Amino acid sequence: MRCLILVAHGSRRATSNDEVRRLAALLQRQARGRYDAVVAAFLELAEPGIPAAIDACVARGAREIVLLPYFLAAGEHVARDIPAQVAPKQAQHPQVSISVAPYLGAADEGIAALLLQLAP
Amino acid sequence: MRCLILVAHGSRRATSNDEVRRLAALLQRQARGRYDAVVAAFLELAEPGIPAAIDACVARGAREIVLLPYFLAAGEHVARDIPAQVAPKQAQHPQVSISVAPYLGAADEGIAALLLQLAP
Repeated sequence: MRCLILVAHGSRRATSNDEVRRLAALLQRQARGRYDAVVAAFLELAEPGIPAAIDACVARGAREIVLLPYFLAAGEHVARDIPAQVAPKQAQHPQVSISVAPYLGAADEGIAALLLQLAP
Repeated sequence: MRCLILVAHGSRRATSNDEVRRLAALLQRQARGRYDAVVAAFLELAEPGIPAAIDACVARGAREIVLLPYFLAAGEHVARDIPAQVAPKQAQHPQVSISVAPYLGAADEGIAALLLQLAP
């Protein structure tokens, strides 16, 4: 069982967090066959947090968990904060493979193409 | 002469702002034939700000300026702060068409596809 966790920063605005949850639901549909479940998690300010999301995936029987940082910049959150929350969970669940994929902003060619689709 | 302004939030980390400038340079190459110039601008914390970027485009002879918000969520920055900086510049340069394109996060299908390319 493979689980994908879309990790966003989290916002005080509930509508922003709901946007992320909707994106996770869209990913779930697009990822059919590659991931059995796609869920949203938040670094701060919204629930579930990253550790709780990992625990929920493990409880559902995940053997492999991939975290996908929904961030545009390679800042402290991506470089330090997300790995720091993942490491103790990997130690707690050694039978599960937990990895962190590149952050969204790393896909610069794809993002540039998307941006040009948005511009008139 | 058409000018595209990639509008990012701006960061205290110079490397994050440089990522945005590199993305603008990449857009410049990909947008050849559609835009004569692509530049980066920042809502706060980095230079140039939005008004200065608009003025620079006008000084270069722009007849049409499109601002492209490099934001994932439709928060206050996208809904209020960017338009609030654009409106007085449009009033100041009535001979130039200045518009704001949809923000990056609005391209949810495209973003979902990109995210799935990043996940293993």
